[in-house]
Amino acid sequence: MQKDDLLECHKRIAPFVHRTPVFSSQLLNKIADTTVFFKCENFQRMGAYKMRGATNAILQLTKELRNKGVVTHSSGNFAQALSLAAKSLKVKAYIVMPSSAPLVKKDAVKGYGGNIIECEPTLEARNATAKKIGVETGATFIHPSNDLEVIAGQGTACMELLEEQPNLDVVVVPVGGGGLIAGTALAVHYFGNDCKVIGAEPFEVDDAYRSLQSGKIECNATTNTIADGLKTQLGTNTFPIMQEYVDGIIRVTEEEIVTAMQLVWERMKIIIEPSSAVAFAAVLREKEKFKNKKIGIIVSGGNVDLKKLPF
Amino acid sequence: MQKDDLLECHKRIAPFVHRTPVFSSQLLNKIADTTVFFKCENFQRMGAYKMRGATNAILQLTKELRNKGVVTHSSGNFAQALSLAAKSLKVKAYIVMPSSAPLVKKDAVKGYGGNIIECEPTLEARNATAKKIGVETGATFIHPSNDLEVIAGQGTACMELLEEQPNLDVVVVPVGGGGLIAGTALAVHYFGNDCKVIGAEPFEVDDAYRSLQSGKIECNATTNTIADGLKTQLGTNTFPIMQEYVDGIIRVTEEEIVTAMQLVWERMKIIIEPSSAVAFAAVLREKEKFKNKKIGIIVSGGNVDLKKLPF
Repeated sequence: MQKDDLLECHKRIAPFVHRTPVFSSQLLNKIADTTVFFKCENFQRMGAYKMRGATNAILQLTKELRNKGVVTHSSGNFAQALSLAAKSLKVKAYIVMPSSAPLVKKDAVKGYGGNIIECEPTLEARNATAKKIGVETGATFIHPSNDLEVIAGQGTACMELLEEQPNLDVVVVPVGGGGLIAGTALAVHYFGNDCKVIGAEPFEVDDAYRSLQSGKIECNATTNTIADGLKTQLGTNTFPIMQEYVDGIIRVTEEEIVTAMQLVWERMKIIIEPSSAVAFAAVLREKEKFKNKKIGIIVSGGNVDLKKLPF
Repeated sequence: MQKDDLLECHKRIAPFVHRTPVFSSQLLNKIADTTVFFKCENFQRMGAYKMRGATNAILQLTKELRNKGVVTHSSGNFAQALSLAAKSLKVKAYIVMPSSAPLVKKDAVKGYGGNIIECEPTLEARNATAKKIGVETGATFIHPSNDLEVIAGQGTACMELLEEQPNLDVVVVPVGGGGLIAGTALAVHYFGNDCKVIGAEPFEVDDAYRSLQSGKIECNATTNTIADGLKTQLGTNTFPIMQEYVDGIIRVTEEEIVTAMQLVWERMKIIIEPSSAVAFAAVLREKEKFKNKKIGIIVSGGNVDLKKLPF
């Protein structure tokens, strides 16, 4: 992916997504002993950066393909993002979800106009069902993180952050399927100024950490983390980009995630989801490493169930 | 108070307070069937608009008086605001608090550098203790809402809102002691463009509603509301300003407050305290009245105990 691809992607999606603000907090800077700029994608449409990638992926389809719709499998933010992006662009969205997905998530997808197709709660069933929908309807499959147009879209959040703060020393982002960190790493590569990219993930699902060590895509045997957006594994597109452009992964405990989340809620008065707190937790965990630096954090989203808070 | 007094006040406090952003949400506008601009004083220093009035009151003291410190009685946001404003200006702050005040509030005041003096939990004891401190130390008493310099300071939030949205039809603010609504009403009078001012308060503490009806300052026999910032009664300065410039009070139920608060948390991803939610609850309660208008709401603060949420 070239510099111009990202610039054109940013221009393409701009009418359909929010330009989110960048926040900073004197109190949190004092606690972290450094300077942190939070790119608030929790304020993005539908509450997460995924709106960017979903929008770009649909916009890159021909008119003929758009008429046939799009399909994905996700029970998280990408399901909502693709539904809303499709609705905004008058395209039909088929969302394959495990029958076991929480009602609140199904309702959210329906609320954004997505058509839910339920399947057995296995990765095989999800893939097979999505494929079947594609064959039956002609809808184009869009992967939540591994699609190159999705990766480019996710990178635009960091492009905007670097426009406002061109001299960041490091950008820290949570890692799940790798769409955000791959897009961010490309944005930093083309638009950063001697800036590093660090991924953050829970110890409980440290597949990205292990993948970068072993040189092949690792998976998680268990996924006992509060950061429910980070349970997925890397893909064939996201992983090589990470191998080339990511400078390291910091792992954090569940307790550190909750502490970081609570600090941001209490001090900044903004609602961020656990997956987003993982990045700030990483900064707090390795204070010495980040001391007196200019740090950017992509706050990935703010979709939490207020009835199930960890505080 | 004249137009120039407010303009000078704004200039005076600007270096010591944040210029907070104004947020709007397509989703909430759809739900409310109107257009609402939220002035986010939850992002103000120490998390509430009270920082403005406290800062102005201290800045208006002579150097001699500043050297002797300031004193107030409050167990809420003003206690923290006066402590932090005093600390920023290198002035000593004495905060009279009832011995029954929650530890979390005492700790917050201490955290901002305030000196706590405990007293019996009665209005008489609060006044007497504050007076005693004043006599002993020479500290100037600053009332949390009825002080004219405090009122002017609180009005600057609405001045900034009107700078960004000059054609608001109505500004809705919560009413407790009346400092915010009095300052807001003056700001709207001098800087608004055919704009009305509506107060919002819980049915459970509807003293302002009754005061405007009876023509004298009424009090509350009980204060069973979640909006803990609104339990106080109007003052000899705030009430006459309200009589002259406020167009009405809307009362809301406790359930409506919680619903409005949850909507803002879930849809806007910002943390607002129950007292702030009262204003949006009023807009939702009287939808017909506010339909297709441009409405400003001062989000008064975001200080909540995350361990005691009403959801």
